[in-house]
Amino acid sequence: MNVQRLTLHPDRLFPSDPVVRDIARRLYQQIKDLPIVSPHGHTDPSWFADNANWDNATSLLLLPDHYVFRMLYSQGITLEELGIHREDGVAVESDYRKIFQIFAKHYHLFRGTPSRLWLDSVFHDVFGFTKMLCEDTANHYYDSINAQLAKPEFKPRALLERFNIELIATTEGALNDLKHHAALKGSGFETRVITTFRPDDVIDADREDFVRNIAKLAELTGEDTQNWQGYLAALRKRRAVFREHGATATDHGHPTAFTADLTMNDAAALYQRCISGKASATEKELFRGQMLTEMAGMSLEDGMTMQIHPGAHRNHNKVIFDRFGPDKGADIPSATEYVQALKPLLHKYGNEAKLNIILFTLDETTYARELAPLAGHYPALKLGPAWWFHDSPEGMLRFRHQVTETAGFYNTVGFNDDTRAFLSIPARHDVARRIDCRFLAGLVAEHRLTEEEAGELAYELTSGLVKKAYQLK
Amino acid sequence: MNVQRLTLHPDRLFPSDPVVRDIARRLYQQIKDLPIVSPHGHTDPSWFADNANWDNATSLLLLPDHYVFRMLYSQGITLEELGIHREDGVAVESDYRKIFQIFAKHYHLFRGTPSRLWLDSVFHDVFGFTKMLCEDTANHYYDSINAQLAKPEFKPRALLERFNIELIATTEGALNDLKHHAALKGSGFETRVITTFRPDDVIDADREDFVRNIAKLAELTGEDTQNWQGYLAALRKRRAVFREHGATATDHGHPTAFTADLTMNDAAALYQRCISGKASATEKELFRGQMLTEMAGMSLEDGMTMQIHPGAHRNHNKVIFDRFGPDKGADIPSATEYVQALKPLLHKYGNEAKLNIILFTLDETTYARELAPLAGHYPALKLGPAWWFHDSPEGMLRFRHQVTETAGFYNTVGFNDDTRAFLSIPARHDVARRIDCRFLAGLVAEHRLTEEEAGELAYELTSGLVKKAYQLK
Amino acid sequence: MNVQRLTLHPDRLFPSDPVVRDIARRLYQQIKDLPIVSPHGHTDPSWFADNANWDNATSLLLLPDHYVFRMLYSQGITLEELGIHREDGVAVESDYRKIFQIFAKHYHLFRGTPSRLWLDSVFHDVFGFTKMLCEDTANHYYDSINAQLAKPEFKPRALLERFNIELIATTEGALNDLKHHAALKGSGFETRVITTFRPDDVIDADREDFVRNIAKLAELTGEDTQNWQGYLAALRKRRAVFREHGATATDHGHPTAFTADLTMNDAAALYQRCISGKASATEKELFRGQMLTEMAGMSLEDGMTMQIHPGAHRNHNKVIFDRFGPDKGADIPSATEYVQALKPLLHKYGNEAKLNIILFTLDETTYARELAPLAGHYPALKLGPAWWFHDSPEGMLRFRHQVTETAGFYNTVGFNDDTRAFLSIPARHDVARRIDCRFLAGLVAEHRLTEEEAGELAYELTSGLVKKAYQLK
Repeated sequence: MNVQRLTLHPDRLFPSDPVVRDIARRLYQQIKDLPIVSPHGHTDPSWFADNANWDNATSLLLLPDHYVFRMLYSQGITLEELGIHREDGVAVESDYRKIFQIFAKHYHLFRGTPSRLWLDSVFHDVFGFTKMLCEDTANHYYDSINAQLAKPEFKPRALLERFNIELIATTEGALNDLKHHAALKGSGFETRVITTFRPDDVIDADREDFVRNIAKLAELTGEDTQNWQGYLAALRKRRAVFREHGATATDHGHPTAFTADLTMNDAAALYQRCISGKASATEKELFRGQMLTEMAGMSLEDGMTMQIHPGAHRNHNKVIFDRFGPDKGADIPSATEYVQALKPLLHKYGNEAKLNIILFTLDETTYARELAPLAGHYPALKLGPAWWFHDSPEGMLRFRHQVTETAGFYNTVGFNDDTRAFLSIPARHDVARRIDCRFLAGLVAEHRLTEEEAGELAYELTSGLVKKAYQLK
Repeated sequence: MNVQRLTLHPDRLFPSDPVVRDIARRLYQQIKDLPIVSPHGHTDPSWFADNANWDNATSLLLLPDHYVFRMLYSQGITLEELGIHREDGVAVESDYRKIFQIFAKHYHLFRGTPSRLWLDSVFHDVFGFTKMLCEDTANHYYDSINAQLAKPEFKPRALLERFNIELIATTEGALNDLKHHAALKGSGFETRVITTFRPDDVIDADREDFVRNIAKLAELTGEDTQNWQGYLAALRKRRAVFREHGATATDHGHPTAFTADLTMNDAAALYQRCISGKASATEKELFRGQMLTEMAGMSLEDGMTMQIHPGAHRNHNKVIFDRFGPDKGADIPSATEYVQALKPLLHKYGNEAKLNIILFTLDETTYARELAPLAGHYPALKLGPAWWFHDSPEGMLRFRHQVTETAGFYNTVGFNDDTRAFLSIPARHDVARRIDCRFLAGLVAEHRLTEEEAGELAYELTSGLVKKAYQLK
Repeated sequence: MNVQRLTLHPDRLFPSDPVVRDIARRLYQQIKDLPIVSPHGHTDPSWFADNANWDNATSLLLLPDHYVFRMLYSQGITLEELGIHREDGVAVESDYRKIFQIFAKHYHLFRGTPSRLWLDSVFHDVFGFTKMLCEDTANHYYDSINAQLAKPEFKPRALLERFNIELIATTEGALNDLKHHAALKGSGFETRVITTFRPDDVIDADREDFVRNIAKLAELTGEDTQNWQGYLAALRKRRAVFREHGATATDHGHPTAFTADLTMNDAAALYQRCISGKASATEKELFRGQMLTEMAGMSLEDGMTMQIHPGAHRNHNKVIFDRFGPDKGADIPSATEYVQALKPLLHKYGNEAKLNIILFTLDETTYARELAPLAGHYPALKLGPAWWFHDSPEGMLRFRHQVTETAGFYNTVGFNDDTRAFLSIPARHDVARRIDCRFLAGLVAEHRLTEEEAGELAYELTSGLVKKAYQLK
């Protein structure tokens, strides 16, 4: 196969049916240039605080992107060849050009995947390439990207402007000093780059560093975290600090959606077991469940939106985890139950219309069976967009097809990019906008909605519902 | 947004692809005017017995429709504001006009839901509106509907004629006196409005009123229900009474599809435990399972079709249940297992070709994995249509796409409206007919069926298979 | 309905949308005439060894096809009427013409099923019929098929040529003498008809004949199978014999995907329990799990590809099993878990890039949730095509739609026909090719792939990836 042209067709992701496509085009025209609101993600706040140029194509585009290297790894390329840092200090490939060449040579593996859509968009729209990435174009790509990254207009803040990002939320652990967000104060970017409170490190007693984290929590807050009330007070203080750094939301990445509602005494006793390091696996799960309910209670107090991202079996591949650490593409979704799991929390707080709890899932079987019926009833619940492996054209279509008839549109919250791949953010939002317009166009073409209604909904899904759910502006 | 026109496009729910659409149109023309056969539903038999005019738009269209108020509730409107009766006697909104206005103002919440399709059809076809419901048209709607409801041609029997309903089955508990069906005798409607035997109240030992119900069962039948044989004899008598009031089917709404096949002695002993009020949760589940098998046995004796509707977690929201009672939009589907659960019943009766057991599900993952393979093998099994949350265009399409290749069409039983919303019945059947024609048209367009075959199937799905499965005519 | 014409439309299974259809046509033109590679199936090797003419339409087309008679049985036709052999010796219908007539009369039951597609293709392409099968054409069909089957050009090897089958793999148990494959040596067909090693009979201690099989394994190999090391040595020897008869793969049909990784001592002790006949159900499941891991280890040694086909609840209908034996259409899929189940095996061997483990499923909910994420990470894993009940147009589309975005195309292995219905093999591969081209055409029409890339992928899915995964040529 010769070097192919790289084009981004203006109708990409729209169906070829001319009736649906024309409606989708018209809807998309109305919302395509709206500013990006990114209320949940994992970009590095130091980028925006320091505003330094990025170094090179490989360390910006490949090394942090587990979507990319998991696919290469699945086809027999070692993580060492890809330059992924080994925790045991064994040397790995350090020639970034060579790594980029391996990636380019295997770019065909991404055919049919969302990574391909995002990467092509970055290559075309951000860097201006008009030939597709392949073995033959690898060096040209590598040199050209590096040269462009060195320019002032490729600094993080300049790209924030260029990408028309109105707001971006990063995610920090409860013990984070938030120094990068602090550094943004006075820069004019402090309301545009905000943090999110992710307390898994001080809530999940299964973590190896849990006991140490509880001690750090005491240092940071001046509270006595050796007792339940002091621990809760410390969490309240950290939430307040996060809110001072812009946070409007919390995030919780538990293995399951299990919740509990213990008496104060039982919760206090369970906490003592957990910080003693002697808690069983069942007790730790119970504690996580109790803490989700506690967090919902605190959200009702301080108004922060609560995000629940359950269901990932983290670090499934022990060999990879031992050698390279977490987040190396070896997290695997598992079947996730919500109806029983959320009952204690919902019994306590589900009828609170002022509370915003956003549920996500990696188990699509729950869309129509559990999540849409729950969100279509409980005032406190909304549904987050198709997540992680399902953040893709087909995944988004399944989400809308399976959720809308029971939950409607107004119990959903628009799009989250949830990414650490900053340069791909415009492409990711563009995919979501196109797919939403396509879905709406289908309803219009089948006379289930008027085009005027679809236009209103396209705006809501892109902007209105996002801001409402995350309490922005 | 201005007041929009309300139109029902003749091609609604058909795809825009001209090839498929044209075939769908032709198939639909052949069956759209066939009489409605509604073999399973929850309309109030007193309507047809008394034939009184309905009172007003709110109490007819909104208050009984949990699809409607669950959505409004999910968006922060209280059930009190919607005039839903509180069991504790606390006053709720009683201004029906005001309730209708709230509904109208929030009508946009239903965009993309089947309620919107049904309601628009009722507004347009039954009441003749040509502007869409919204805040501005609320009063006009309310006044006009009320005025029309007062007319003789809007009495229940007149609408039965106008809607071309050939037969409608209501659903009554085993202890019901069936007085409304008795009153219909001699009216010419007794074969058109029939009952269905739903014995959950005397079979489910988990119900608070179970022991009382068993006592009432004795009174009604003259059988000694304090022993197993007397209990079974009483059930046989009630089944006979229901058959005298037209019933051709039973209905069973258990939390799971679990069945059992105990020895007579074990069953008798278990029954004693249940009526003593001392049975454990496990024993009650075992008893429900045993009773499904007993009911199948009685169906084989008396010829009644058996419907199994498992998998709803009833009254998930305790706050709402305590305040407003059951059926308030807080029933949530759960994962449902059929392969192990049905084995005891199927071992005993599954090979009986004379038996008609119709399985429903709220767990769509079982369509292709469990239900179609079971129904495509066991002579006694057929599959009911997409149910409840899945009684929707997308839900019906998923049903056909996932069931047909393994179970074919002839192991399915056409459509059930399963509704208490009488005025929406024509719209609901019309949605089903359109979606079936659309699905069939897709097969024809892809040369998987001839159009002649598709026409035959459209008739079967609308009428032939319904009458066969429910033994009508 | 009159007798209808039987035609196979050149665009069958392509969508009617002209843009997608035209791309699909072009892609299909490029690959439709490629030789058939059938790396997994259940045809009878004696056909190719003996090369005798088949006897009649009924015993060739109906009696071995459980897809066909399960559907007829589900609609009230007894297996006795269909001439299925009873194990208790009770006479069944032996008039093959009469059986064929019953089938013909009920051919409408297969509308919308893949059996209909395959059978119509066989009738039209293999036997030249131009009228559809129905009651009126039954005798003509029966006589004509029988007459054709008697001709030399309908002998098995002649059809192998006519069907352009480059390679076909049969499946034999570990104790099979492989005499038919041995007979093929020197015929020129020995590399074209190969065996597959299926050791369930000597691995699954739940089988009634397990202990006897272990004794036979000793006889066949000369190893002392009364101890763990001798048993493993015997298995290695059998694998070697199978490889001498062409095998490049093993196959494992366990009820679940459970795997284990015991110490050598624990495994040896467990084996002793199993051959003593005293193992509990849990121990037998543990043994099956351990043996999957052992088999993966041997595959790493001898290079055989390993196929895992879990999740069928075999012989669900005890009445049918007792009367007619296994494989009578009463196997029902069950929910299948992979993430925990495969962890022991993957921990030990999942990172081996030289190992080829092909996973299949009957539980489609695992495609996007578990299987694609696993195969998109572990070098040893690939995904087999849509299997059994899902080997159908809709099933294949669901597979591609749900798998591709996470696993890509290159972690899949093309098509398996997995059939004992030899005459339907061309039709089955044709369905797969058409559906793959249709899916690829959709991606091209939506500008997610170039047509050049799609062409390359169409070739890979038809031939390249099959040969790579099964190590052919």
